[in-house]
Amino acid sequence: MFITFEGGEGAGKTTILHRLAQRLTEEGYHVMTTREPGGIPIAEKIRDIILDKKNSIMDARTEALLYAAARRQHLVEKVKPALAKGEIVLCDRFIDSSLAYQGVARGLGVEAVFQINQFAIADQMPDLTLFFDIHPKEGLARIHNNKEREQNRLDLESLQFHNQVYQAYQQLLLKFPERIERIDANFDIIEVEANAYNKIKAKLL
Amino acid sequence: MFITFEGGEGAGKTTILHRLAQRLTEEGYHVMTTREPGGIPIAEKIRDIILDKKNSIMDARTEALLYAAARRQHLVEKVKPALAKGEIVLCDRFIDSSLAYQGVARGLGVEAVFQINQFAIADQMPDLTLFFDIHPKEGLARIHNNKEREQNRLDLESLQFHNQVYQAYQQLLLKFPERIERIDANFDIIEVEANAYNKIKAKLL
Repeated sequence: MFITFEGGEGAGKTTILHRLAQRLTEEGYHVMTTREPGGIPIAEKIRDIILDKKNSIMDARTEALLYAAARRQHLVEKVKPALAKGEIVLCDRFIDSSLAYQGVARGLGVEAVFQINQFAIADQMPDLTLFFDIHPKEGLARIHNNKEREQNRLDLESLQFHNQVYQAYQQLLLKFPERIERIDANFDIIEVEANAYNKIKAKLL
Repeated sequence: MFITFEGGEGAGKTTILHRLAQRLTEEGYHVMTTREPGGIPIAEKIRDIILDKKNSIMDARTEALLYAAARRQHLVEKVKPALAKGEIVLCDRFIDSSLAYQGVARGLGVEAVFQINQFAIADQMPDLTLFFDIHPKEGLARIHNNKEREQNRLDLESLQFHNQVYQAYQQLLLKFPERIERIDANFDIIEVEANAYNKIKAKLL
């Protein structure tokens, strides 16, 4: 069972991912949590190129191909072996992040970015994707109020950028209705976690 | 005018590329010669990851995506600006090498590798591609008799691998008849160069 967690910044998905991993482990499931590049040396080196501030002239298509390459290697070296052992894999962001961020917000087109990611993923699409739905204004306000959280590159993008990402996720919900489940992330974290837990359990049973 | 040089090892394409560049320059054309990654820092770093011997567990799809990423950046930073200035660009290997080596010889499929490279290239396919046609047995014999040439990774592959690449190029000739011109590379280099020169001049006039 390969489950991915998606959504804009400040939706709480990373916190909930780790709480759910603990809960499922306590119930006796074998759970692996990961996020790209996931400590895979080749994928880490690819990410270093993407994030290198000196590489400011990187073309958006180069970047999308590099994300797809890092995704492939993380999938082959970490996700697939865990799935082969029967583990539940909870992955923080996956293909839908590329579709939303590169495909829509960077303007490369969802279909084009989907094609290169299909090449990368081959036959290993997620079995279930939880989309934590919160309006960008609300999500970003949470981030600014959270003093413990280190700001990342995406946090610093404009509100317009985050609105585009949000609209992109809404499109993806329509495009993949059988794979992506919407979780309303406006509620208290305990309630959001409970909803996410129920979606996963429904798939597991 | 964007012209790419393709073919197996030992076909003489690199030698002929530089002789033709000199000849066209003497005729008053502005010519740029290049090959990937072409001194473009981002593309060089990507190639370093591909060629790093420690990265022996690299998946074939990861590799194909990295080649496409390096191709994109070299195209954007070096080829397109030269074309925009009206220069003739002679490029040693390009998309067809990926189709032959990754698509066929590595077994990823020509169509799949073509798709990710179309994403990388976007609207900048070569105007003309010269395929230097020589049977692998003959090409490899030339390499082994050439003491000045340093052996590269591809030279060390099996004859079976080179035969697959050769068959792949024959398929590409059929797939892109209006773009790829076949040059019989079995003749003396002076004669092969003359044939290549005539093909280019026919396109330039």
